[in-house]
Formats: sequence, C-alpha cells, structure tokens
Amino acid sequence: MKTYRKELVFEIPTRRAFVNITAEVVDCIEQSRINEGLLLCNAMHITSSVFINDHEAGLHQDFEEWLEGLAPHAPISRYRHNDTGEDNGDAHLKRTIMGREVVVAITDGRLDFGPWEQIFYGEFDGRRRKRVLVKIIGE
Amino acid sequence: MKTYRKELVFEIPTRRAFVNITAEVVDCIEQSRINEGLLLCNAMHITSSVFINDHEAGLHQDFEEWLEGLAPHAPISRYRHNDTGEDNGDAHLKRTIMGREVVVAITDGRLDFGPWEQIFYGEFDGRRRKRVLVKIIGE
Amino acid sequence: MKTYRKELVFEIPTRRAFVNITAEVVDCIEQSRINEGLLLCNAMHITSSVFINDHEAGLHQDFEEWLEGLAPHAPISRYRHNDTGEDNGDAHLKRTIMGREVVVAITDGRLDFGPWEQIFYGEFDGRRRKRVLVKIIGE
Repeated sequence: MKTYRKELVFEIPTRRAFVNITAEVVDCIEQSRINEGLLLCNAMHITSSVFINDHEAGLHQDFEEWLEGLAPHAPISRYRHNDTGEDNGDAHLKRTIMGREVVVAITDGRLDFGPWEQIFYGEFDGRRRKRVLVKIIGE
Repeated sequence: MKTYRKELVFEIPTRRAFVNITAEVVDCIEQSRINEGLLLCNAMHITSSVFINDHEAGLHQDFEEWLEGLAPHAPISRYRHNDTGEDNGDAHLKRTIMGREVVVAITDGRLDFGPWEQIFYGEFDGRRRKRVLVKIIGE
Repeated sequence: MKTYRKELVFEIPTRRAFVNITAEVVDCIEQSRINEGLLLCNAMHITSSVFINDHEAGLHQDFEEWLEGLAPHAPISRYRHNDTGEDNGDAHLKRTIMGREVVVAITDGRLDFGPWEQIFYGEFDGRRRKRVLVKIIGE
C-alpha cells in the first residue's frame, strides 16, 4: 500500500469565496503514483469547506445568496459563538451545509469523475492563511 | 490490496425520486471478494445524491417537502444558474443538503451497518441517464 | 494492509446533545497500530450524526437553535414519518444537515487535523442505546 499527503494553502483576500482546486488535486494524484485507491480532500479549518459541484459562476452566486439566507452573517449578535469575541458564527454553519470533505476514487491513475464534477474550496471566513489536506491511499 | 469498481445506471422518469440501492451495493461487495475495507458510493452527477437514511415512504415525502422549502424549484428565475438556459438551479442546492457520497465499512465481507441504515440514490433532475460510482478498496 | 474496527456506545439521557468523541477516536488509532491510512467514523443510526467542528459551547447552542429553525421538532404532525407512530421526523432531517460520517487521515500514527478540528457525536433522538462505528484501514 502506498500513501501520499499534501497540504494546499490558501489566503483568500475576502471573507467568502469559492476556488476551483481540481487541477491541484490532479497534480497530487500524479505525484503520488497511485493508480487505484481513495483520495480524501478536507478543509483543515472549521469555517471552510471542500465540496464537489459545477464550475459555473451563476451557481456560485446562488450558493452565496442561499447560504446567507440559511445562516446570515449579521447581526453578529445573533450567534452565541460570537459572544467569545469572534464574528464568524455564520461561517461554522455555512461550512456545515457545504461539507468538510470529499472522498473520491482513483482509477487507472486518474480522478474517477462524472462529466461535470469539479472540486472546490469554500471559504467562509477568509483574510488569513488556511489549509486543505489531500491524503491518498492505494497502490 | 484489492480494488473494485462498478457504475450503477439510472434513468428516472420524473424530475425527483429516491431509490433504495442497498441491494446493488451489497452485490458489488460480493463481486469484489473484499472482506475488510472501505466502500465509496457517490453520485457522478452534480444534481443527484447518494445518502443513508430510513426506507420509509413518509420520511421520503418529508425530505421532498423539506428540500422544496429550503431550495424551491420555481420560479426558475430565482437562480442565476438558470440564466445559462438550465432549469435545475434548485437541484444543485438540494443535492448539497443531501450529500454527494457515502463511505461505508466492509467487515467480514458484509456491509457494516446499523439496524436501519439503507443507501439511497436521490435524483433532483431526472428524465435522463445518470450514473453512480461504487469503488471498494481493501483485501 | 491492516484493518481495525470498534463500536462506541452512547446512551444520552436527553433528546439532543453534542458529545466530543475525539479522545475515543485517538484511542482507536493507538490500538490499531496503523500509522498511515484512512479512518471512517459514522453514526450507525439514522437519527444521529458524526461531524467535525469547534469545541465551543456557544457554537453548540447556535447549532441547536439553527437546526430547530430548519427542521422543528413540533408540531409532530408536520412530518409524515410521524404518522408511523414515531415522533422523530425532525431528527432524520437534523442528522442530514449535520452529516452521517467523517473520513479523516492518519499520518505518522496520529489524527491528521487542523488546529481546531474536533470530532463530535450529534444525538437528535436520544434516551436509548446507540452506536458509532470506527473503521480504520492502512498500515
């Protein structure tokens, strides 16, 4: 069995953003020389997500508005978490909707994906350095 | 290490449906001859889900109504994604709530499940051919 | 390849609760003697969750109120699932938001986590014995 590990680093200049990281994940598979296995890609922070959906700007705008409706950022006083001095209570909830991680199959040395699947990093409390873990096991 | 891969194919005649796929997944485990390992089962499309819950018709009706409340299909104009000519903006959001994938344990050659766990395919934009991936690694 | 399996057992005296199970999961990794691999931790029941977020009481209160807003417990008659005699229709939906499972990386014999990641059991229909599965594969 082989294993591979890499951290991807992000420093998003805005509070929220979606970043397509599919190419970085494909690079990891190539570097790993693993042909058959499973790949885990997870946010290492609890106010960001890794998820799979469509690379389409209108959809990302829909996600942004929908998440803001389900878990509004303001007023900050609506979240007990923010009583600690934080202002990111909403980010913990938004990340919960979008998910922490994806697990994907590697087949014949490639990402085993459907036609429109792309992997995204979802940032909900940016403007600082954050990390995503890629871990692969297989052979 | 052994690996196994299979695609399950669906062509749901309605826009939305939930289909119990537990028996198909169990067949995959038997075909794989893998006794100990992990099984990934994921939708290969971004408007459908694979999830684990109860095989109970009332609950599925509750899911349908609840998802329609959280991400209504109409009016189609409420989603920027639909400006591209699509009418499935809601399906991307509904699939996000229900999830893309499940990872389950295989122990002694069997699905290592609690008493009520069943695996479902969730379709949110049907009436065309779509696929689910089953990938197993173990030995 | 090595594999490891353990069930964690909970009997929560209230309907709902969040329990930090990170130490129990770390114990499993130590017992497994697996240094590199993937760990699956999933609820074996369909009205409870395993998820990763912050060990902060205010946030847990926010989760409780937010989930109650998205899928209220009462009136019980609002869920068709409860026509079967159950009163836990809301618990199936709350668990869907919070997720069934987490997959985490093991690196150098340790949980490969970011600074604030902690694993929680989320109970949404307690007052009875329920189980969580920990399955590890690696070497």
